[in-house]
Amino acid sequence: MPAISEKGRIMPESPIRKLVPYAEKAHKAGKTVFYLNIGQPDIKTPQVALDAVANHSLDILAYSRSEGSEEYRIKIADYYAKNDINVAHNDIIVTTGGSEALLFAFGSIMDQDDEIIIPEPFYANYNGFSTASGVNVVPVISKIDNNFALPPIEEFEKLITNKTKAILICNPGNPTGYLYSKDEIKKLADLVKKHDLFLIADEVYREFVYDSISHYSILQEEGLEDHAIVIDSVSKRYSMCGARIGYLVSKNKTLIATALKFAQARLSPPTLAQIASEAALQTPQSYFDEVNVEYVSRRNTLINALEKIDGVKVAKPNGAFYCIAELPVKNSDDFAKWLLESFDYEGQTVMVAPAAGFYSTPGVGLNQIRIAYVLNEDSLLKAVKILEEALKVYKD
Amino acid sequence: MPAISEKGRIMPESPIRKLVPYAEKAHKAGKTVFYLNIGQPDIKTPQVALDAVANHSLDILAYSRSEGSEEYRIKIADYYAKNDINVAHNDIIVTTGGSEALLFAFGSIMDQDDEIIIPEPFYANYNGFSTASGVNVVPVISKIDNNFALPPIEEFEKLITNKTKAILICNPGNPTGYLYSKDEIKKLADLVKKHDLFLIADEVYREFVYDSISHYSILQEEGLEDHAIVIDSVSKRYSMCGARIGYLVSKNKTLIATALKFAQARLSPPTLAQIASEAALQTPQSYFDEVNVEYVSRRNTLINALEKIDGVKVAKPNGAFYCIAELPVKNSDDFAKWLLESFDYEGQTVMVAPAAGFYSTPGVGLNQIRIAYVLNEDSLLKAVKILEEALKVYKD
Repeated sequence: MPAISEKGRIMPESPIRKLVPYAEKAHKAGKTVFYLNIGQPDIKTPQVALDAVANHSLDILAYSRSEGSEEYRIKIADYYAKNDINVAHNDIIVTTGGSEALLFAFGSIMDQDDEIIIPEPFYANYNGFSTASGVNVVPVISKIDNNFALPPIEEFEKLITNKTKAILICNPGNPTGYLYSKDEIKKLADLVKKHDLFLIADEVYREFVYDSISHYSILQEEGLEDHAIVIDSVSKRYSMCGARIGYLVSKNKTLIATALKFAQARLSPPTLAQIASEAALQTPQSYFDEVNVEYVSRRNTLINALEKIDGVKVAKPNGAFYCIAELPVKNSDDFAKWLLESFDYEGQTVMVAPAAGFYSTPGVGLNQIRIAYVLNEDSLLKAVKILEEALKVYKD
Repeated sequence: MPAISEKGRIMPESPIRKLVPYAEKAHKAGKTVFYLNIGQPDIKTPQVALDAVANHSLDILAYSRSEGSEEYRIKIADYYAKNDINVAHNDIIVTTGGSEALLFAFGSIMDQDDEIIIPEPFYANYNGFSTASGVNVVPVISKIDNNFALPPIEEFEKLITNKTKAILICNPGNPTGYLYSKDEIKKLADLVKKHDLFLIADEVYREFVYDSISHYSILQEEGLEDHAIVIDSVSKRYSMCGARIGYLVSKNKTLIATALKFAQARLSPPTLAQIASEAALQTPQSYFDEVNVEYVSRRNTLINALEKIDGVKVAKPNGAFYCIAELPVKNSDDFAKWLLESFDYEGQTVMVAPAAGFYSTPGVGLNQIRIAYVLNEDSLLKAVKILEEALKVYKD
């Protein structure tokens, strides 16, 4: 039998998806499962986007331009302008989800064995994209005790080698919910300018920020034009994860020209999803206001309930819809499997994402889980109750 | 300014798309442009697929499974069964176009600097995917004089090194239109078994075969189960290039499990496009019959007209909807630009794809172009007339 590649062998399984077979078994065994593992919100997609798809007038479902249709990119630039971000439509490449924007960015700036510094815990698929791209993640550990704030900038600087090409942050953070301050962004900006690196910011949760704090985009930082690459996506913003539309945004013309060659090779982003996404830009502000009120309420309910459980520590998120909780268990991977396989509370159980998959340093985060608060408050309270009862009887 | 990657610098521009700005200028200058450069058919998408999208009942445009929905994959397996190809739904991963299926296959079986042997001329984006994956294309030249038939198998064998991981064919071929015989497939099968390599076949044009010849899939070859990887796509089959839905198909379980990890990292293929593509499987056979009658007629018209031009040599295709023509010019890239920038015949001109981009050996195919016969016969005849008039006056 011909051999699988080395990169295929070390390619990580998704920590979010690898427990799915256990959940399916639990479901088949008649248990009700509360899914807190995946960032698939239960929020309705804006009607204007769903209607645009239903009212399509296509005869031929044809390719779009590789960089996305010009009309759509002009409207995206308008969206950014309303958010005090000044970019032209030619600074934008429409991609197949934020995932593809990351792959294009990685391919455009890194070769085999190059290094990218990422504060951990981080979005687990950064590991997958790094492996697929043949590059190495160099982690800087952030801590639950200060809500996963930016580690001291010296921690980053001492990791920079001649292989380092970029620093990657997620702001606000998945899985931490942490929102970087303007001051933290400026520290990173100074560092990447000093060492001539790219700063990639995954800002897909930009609009999910709470407690009257403002989001500060790396595209707003003056003097960072040649260094800043933003990854964006419609997935969470409009609760349309299945569209698979994202953007790569940069004012660095060489970077955009390079990424466009990767985009041309795969021909075009999906046409139907662009119709939905272009229409979604007309979503009224009231939709976002209501969604944010809902998430703040869920977050408060979830954090309060978790904090009441003996031995549970939880970071308070200011953005996105995730939180990391530290549990009184040795190995949350075993615990998460056990919840699905061997435990129920009144016929119900819960699926969580073991947090070790969000770290690249082996052995870190083993007692942590990520919870996505993508269910209504009643379900969240039930899920936390299940966790509490489970922790009373779990032995590891 | 931070540096672009080496792979980003050498990433090829698409030979199909790089002349687009010239075409746009010609269009703005008031010329009518006949587009023979890209495989975007003018054939209508099946109504059943368009209707399924219009009648969607989604509230939340959610992720699908990373490998595509189970129902859809079961129906795809049924489609293959009807085509005498015996695969299970678990042998199939739904991808974002055939493009992504190629990237997953490359990533699953090759590491940096590994080699893949491909008969040239080949689909230009194989170069792009190879560069993006950090692997090297090792070309075997096929010849216009025998319609680009499979080169002698010894030519392949003498190129095999310890870096060689796979042979890749496109059957029927883009850009050649050549349909490999069962005998040719068996020779390749024997070779990959002997050297324990993968055989990847891009069979996206499977249903576009003419002159009562049958298509022989590598999945039909007994004993090749662990070696065969098929790349497929709905793009051309149902004239829905913009859907961006393809499949990776293999009976090699380890290969599928590995590719699935790449699929999980990017979460899921586009959901709306899967709705369209699943419905498209109900397209009546009459649709394909009519389409093939149309393509055969176009092909005959095009080839006959081209052969009448002094100094033009053309290969006769048995499949797909492309042909390669050799022109009495030194450099078809210059000629193609000149057609758009500096020539018109009664206000009309034509856009073709210079063929050098379909070769990876430098300097080969410089006097060839690829023509996609995706326009109606009247337009094709006008386009050939323009070419004929242009060749009378062109000086290189």
